[in-house]
Amino acid sequence: MDLKRFFNPRSIAIVGVSSNPKKVGFLVAKNMIAQGFSGDLCLINIEGKEILGKKTFKNLKETGKKFDLIVICIPAPLAVSFLDEVAENGCQNVIIFAAGFGETHTEEGRKLQIILDEKVIEHKLNILGPNCIGYINTIVNVNATFFQCSAPKGKIGIITQSGALGTAFLDYVVAKSQIGISHLISLGNKTVINESDCIEYLIKDEETKVIAIYLEDVKNGERFIDVLQKATATKPVIILKSGRTIAGSTAAISHTGSIASDDDVFSSIMRKTGVIRAENYGQLEMLLKLYNFEAIPSNNRVLVLSNAGGMGVLLTDELIKAGLELVTVGQEVTNSLNKAFDQVKKISVHNPIDLLGDASAFDYQKAIELTMKEKDVGAIIVLLTPQANTEILETAKVLENIHHQLKFMPLYPIFMGKDSVTEAHRYFESHGISSFRYSSDLPLALAKIIEAEKLRLNPKTMHFDFSNIVSKNESMLNTGAMIAERDTPSSFLNQYDSLTIISKASIKVIKTYLADSLKDLDRIVKQEGFPLVLKTADSKITHKTEVKGVVTGITVYEELINAFNTFSQKPCYVQKQCEGVELIVGSKRDPVFGVVVIVGFGGIFTELINEVAEFVYPFSIYEFNEALAKTKLLKLTQGFRNMPKIDLSQLYDVCLKVGALMDKTPQIKEIDINPLICSQDGLIAVDGRVIV
Amino acid sequence: MDLKRFFNPRSIAIVGVSSNPKKVGFLVAKNMIAQGFSGDLCLINIEGKEILGKKTFKNLKETGKKFDLIVICIPAPLAVSFLDEVAENGCQNVIIFAAGFGETHTEEGRKLQIILDEKVIEHKLNILGPNCIGYINTIVNVNATFFQCSAPKGKIGIITQSGALGTAFLDYVVAKSQIGISHLISLGNKTVINESDCIEYLIKDEETKVIAIYLEDVKNGERFIDVLQKATATKPVIILKSGRTIAGSTAAISHTGSIASDDDVFSSIMRKTGVIRAENYGQLEMLLKLYNFEAIPSNNRVLVLSNAGGMGVLLTDELIKAGLELVTVGQEVTNSLNKAFDQVKKISVHNPIDLLGDASAFDYQKAIELTMKEKDVGAIIVLLTPQANTEILETAKVLENIHHQLKFMPLYPIFMGKDSVTEAHRYFESHGISSFRYSSDLPLALAKIIEAEKLRLNPKTMHFDFSNIVSKNESMLNTGAMIAERDTPSSFLNQYDSLTIISKASIKVIKTYLADSLKDLDRIVKQEGFPLVLKTADSKITHKTEVKGVVTGITVYEELINAFNTFSQKPCYVQKQCEGVELIVGSKRDPVFGVVVIVGFGGIFTELINEVAEFVYPFSIYEFNEALAKTKLLKLTQGFRNMPKIDLSQLYDVCLKVGALMDKTPQIKEIDINPLICSQDGLIAVDGRVIV
Repeated sequence: MDLKRFFNPRSIAIVGVSSNPKKVGFLVAKNMIAQGFSGDLCLINIEGKEILGKKTFKNLKETGKKFDLIVICIPAPLAVSFLDEVAENGCQNVIIFAAGFGETHTEEGRKLQIILDEKVIEHKLNILGPNCIGYINTIVNVNATFFQCSAPKGKIGIITQSGALGTAFLDYVVAKSQIGISHLISLGNKTVINESDCIEYLIKDEETKVIAIYLEDVKNGERFIDVLQKATATKPVIILKSGRTIAGSTAAISHTGSIASDDDVFSSIMRKTGVIRAENYGQLEMLLKLYNFEAIPSNNRVLVLSNAGGMGVLLTDELIKAGLELVTVGQEVTNSLNKAFDQVKKISVHNPIDLLGDASAFDYQKAIELTMKEKDVGAIIVLLTPQANTEILETAKVLENIHHQLKFMPLYPIFMGKDSVTEAHRYFESHGISSFRYSSDLPLALAKIIEAEKLRLNPKTMHFDFSNIVSKNESMLNTGAMIAERDTPSSFLNQYDSLTIISKASIKVIKTYLADSLKDLDRIVKQEGFPLVLKTADSKITHKTEVKGVVTGITVYEELINAFNTFSQKPCYVQKQCEGVELIVGSKRDPVFGVVVIVGFGGIFTELINEVAEFVYPFSIYEFNEALAKTKLLKLTQGFRNMPKIDLSQLYDVCLKVGALMDKTPQIKEIDINPLICSQDGLIAVDGRVIV
Repeated sequence: MDLKRFFNPRSIAIVGVSSNPKKVGFLVAKNMIAQGFSGDLCLINIEGKEILGKKTFKNLKETGKKFDLIVICIPAPLAVSFLDEVAENGCQNVIIFAAGFGETHTEEGRKLQIILDEKVIEHKLNILGPNCIGYINTIVNVNATFFQCSAPKGKIGIITQSGALGTAFLDYVVAKSQIGISHLISLGNKTVINESDCIEYLIKDEETKVIAIYLEDVKNGERFIDVLQKATATKPVIILKSGRTIAGSTAAISHTGSIASDDDVFSSIMRKTGVIRAENYGQLEMLLKLYNFEAIPSNNRVLVLSNAGGMGVLLTDELIKAGLELVTVGQEVTNSLNKAFDQVKKISVHNPIDLLGDASAFDYQKAIELTMKEKDVGAIIVLLTPQANTEILETAKVLENIHHQLKFMPLYPIFMGKDSVTEAHRYFESHGISSFRYSSDLPLALAKIIEAEKLRLNPKTMHFDFSNIVSKNESMLNTGAMIAERDTPSSFLNQYDSLTIISKASIKVIKTYLADSLKDLDRIVKQEGFPLVLKTADSKITHKTEVKGVVTGITVYEELINAFNTFSQKPCYVQKQCEGVELIVGSKRDPVFGVVVIVGFGGIFTELINEVAEFVYPFSIYEFNEALAKTKLLKLTQGFRNMPKIDLSQLYDVCLKVGALMDKTPQIKEIDINPLICSQDGLIAVDGRVIV
């Protein structure tokens, strides 16, 4: 869908313009004029009376023109009927503001939605909305919204599924002299135009330097991932998504009829695509503020200067907690600092550098200029508290001056307090510097930016090589047929069949024997030797360890027979006992994003600890390693307490194969390999469960 | 130490008053006069010239008066000498501002500190500081600080180890018309007066309704806990402590010579005493803002009303994440809401209640009045985004009106945006209502307050009954002697001795046999039967599972012999195998707070998962249960996946006994019981390690 013309129309008709200043039809026309749209603008009013000092037309035909965009401000049933007139005009680009469609969950709304859907197909329409508040493009001065204010030009492109969030953000932008937007697009019900369409458009828009998105649901998972990968290759993308908790999701469903997808899956897509996920609205604002200014930290090493030791310590805590590092000041810089301040006072040159309570603007300047020589600094944070003789505004001026010298390294002033520092904060803002009243939220926002930029600027992380899966796993093609042939009343396959299917994906599976008699046991011992494991084949027992369905560590024949006799149901499963780290590798289907693979602690700890890494299939090894590094699994794979090390590329391979198996076999709903035993000899599936 | 006279002096001398407006000696005198101190104030200037329009005296003697408080503004070496003159005056209460003592880590500073310490003892002085910025008591109009502004009267009592934090906070308070302080006390080096002394004083001060403290270290752990318990029984206490991370602690050490104590231990003391631990400075400000106004949520059930569905969903996510609940709106209220809005529009009556984008002030009023009838609501949060026709200020007025009707239930307005809502925020502030620009930090702050109030208003949690330990554990008294008798070269006791010592604390310990020969094994099997566990007694192997030092699940004689033969070093330990949940119970000594007991996952998962609950001994069962509930251990104790349930009171008993053992046996440095096996038959120590 090419939306260039949609968002850059040469001619616009606003339908349903009203003279009542409280009506949408009035506000939209007013905004469009105030924003200074220089193309052809026609206002349609059924009575044809003059509004906002402009002539109006009774209908589209009367204008005698063909429009690039038609903005419909009339109520839902009328808006739908009006689409025929739109088609007659030859226009395909439409905004519908009215609510009252599918989102209402009423009989009436549903009926109207069906008619709307039919008209869309009939007339091949690009519709923004319904139930939206339109869009703004400051570059071509289009403001087809009923916001209460005009929008300042800038480089942030906003896409929002909540009009109210757009309103709140615009209100914030207007108040900030140095922040502006290129676009603000309200998605509404997403009947035709959805988030992916808008992102695709903003990728190509050169004025948009950063994309910020608020979402409640996602329309087409696969395309969304694809579009985001393209987007982050060009510019930073930040997404705030609601419905993170179950109660939150419920609210989302009753709000716009969204189907909330599993939140962890969404997070894994953010990692996969290098998008920053904002935790909340406040963080979204802060991230945009940080991105709005030029420099972005090139690494996570921070230098802190302060006139208050205690505040330096608090900030250090927060930086470390957020995963940032404090630069260790080298001997050379230490010496020069000591030399510079020696005559005057004894400052602490250990980062955070404490310039003491009487630090003058000149002290700040001197100290920063000397420490700037330290190598590989990602960012400088300058703390100031308004003490007895603190030169607040003078220090702000010094920092502004240094800020311009630094160019590619950001300098963030945190000036604490309130009234004493207001003037300094204004000074920073008017000079395009992000300043802060306290440190609390800055470290986390910086950490997010640094991580996302690392992913973004490293395109290899985005690409996935399919070749190794497709070639190796021909045998998988038969698994569907194999499942279809079976006539299991239960949707759980038993262990034997599950492992067989898993083995079709070229995953190493332990040899499993069925033992019905002592003779069978005898044969198995001869073939495999000890130690052995005996398991019940009772299909009702799914979590085997709970009910003593497993006897492990059988090392002599007598013990084997004893164990065999304790199981009432025969045959039993017998396996050679493997020693190693127990993991779970599983896969499920996400309604929006498709096949999801998880890896976590095996055995009883899977559910108890619930520490898993999730991936949407397919995923790159880089993505895999990064996600694992965020969990305690990494420590386990590194040979924790003399346990065998786990080869991460082998583990990646198993996870990928499980994903491929799911992908190629739609009959499978879920797969669990638990445990997958990892030893120096490799990875082997010991127990499994396939749900079809 | 009774500091009533210290903080409520009838007469004050300021020593070292200067006519230079940049000098501390000038600023302090100016602040004292500006704050309106009505007692006897004498300024001491060595030249005796008139300063700030007031006569000065050349020395204390010249005044001919005895003072309740002497404020010393002269440099460190002079200040120390001056203490003799102070003593001569008969005054014991002194503030010293000067830095240059122990905190400098210089030879000179250390020398000066020693002289100071001697004078303190010689003259029995109460000193605040040195290296502090004094104190303010707005009730009696004392401002013995060199802050840049006077302090507004109010109900917050501040104690701060960082003068700069005090400065920043005071600056904030001054800017907020509805917030004020009763006291602000800067601790400095804490040579004499420390945090516990000041807390004790503020407990008794009736004007102080909430105590807020910033700390870098704690002077006397036991007294600190005791004082905090007394404090929270009277009024809420909030503590912000730095040095949470290792890098942060390092900075703290170089800052004021603090010994940072283990941060988790500090957190456990906050829980124990019902103190709120602020995560950062921003949260401290917010908590004080919330406490400054009357009502505190009585429970964690929140009602949300909004004119923006999306924002309601985001807020819901944040509330749930913080551990709060959304009230389920009952049928009666639902009906009345539906009835009230039926004619007008279709609102969503499911909490968060969405009044839709066109909500008027009257809509808000109507909806809140109806939903207020819902029972057991802890707090109401009202979200507003500035949409096309939003009646922002009118809605603020409506909320203010309801706020006053509610009295014991808080109502928090979140008015999003910036310029559009500024007037409304000012209106709230001037009417004593905490309002917010976005929700991000509110849920967590509320959750903290609710939890702390629950602890605070439930005094049984604070008290600990010693009787059951003291009576039962007479046998412990001998453990010290037993350790002393031993002549172990290693500081680790072996398993056998460790378990013996643990058993002295009346903890059930598994019977451990020493087996040197097959004959021994034979005897043990006869006595105990199978299954058995065989362990190496090689004392070099501390983490036994790593090096195959343990064979478990031995069920037949042949297997036992095989296992026995694999160990090169004899004798081995033999134990009956116990089945159950494996936990670790351990204890260590904190340099500040004394004996700390931990409980966590046992076996190899102890270090990997690192999910432990920590308690400073002694601790109540309530405290124990609460802390466990915050970890994944609770799930494990509740009979997870058919594993045996763990009796929490039995587990508490074991933990307490371990604490008592440490407490009574100073020779023991550390104890580990790992695993403690928990089954339906009780809790039993299977392996242990005692470090002496």
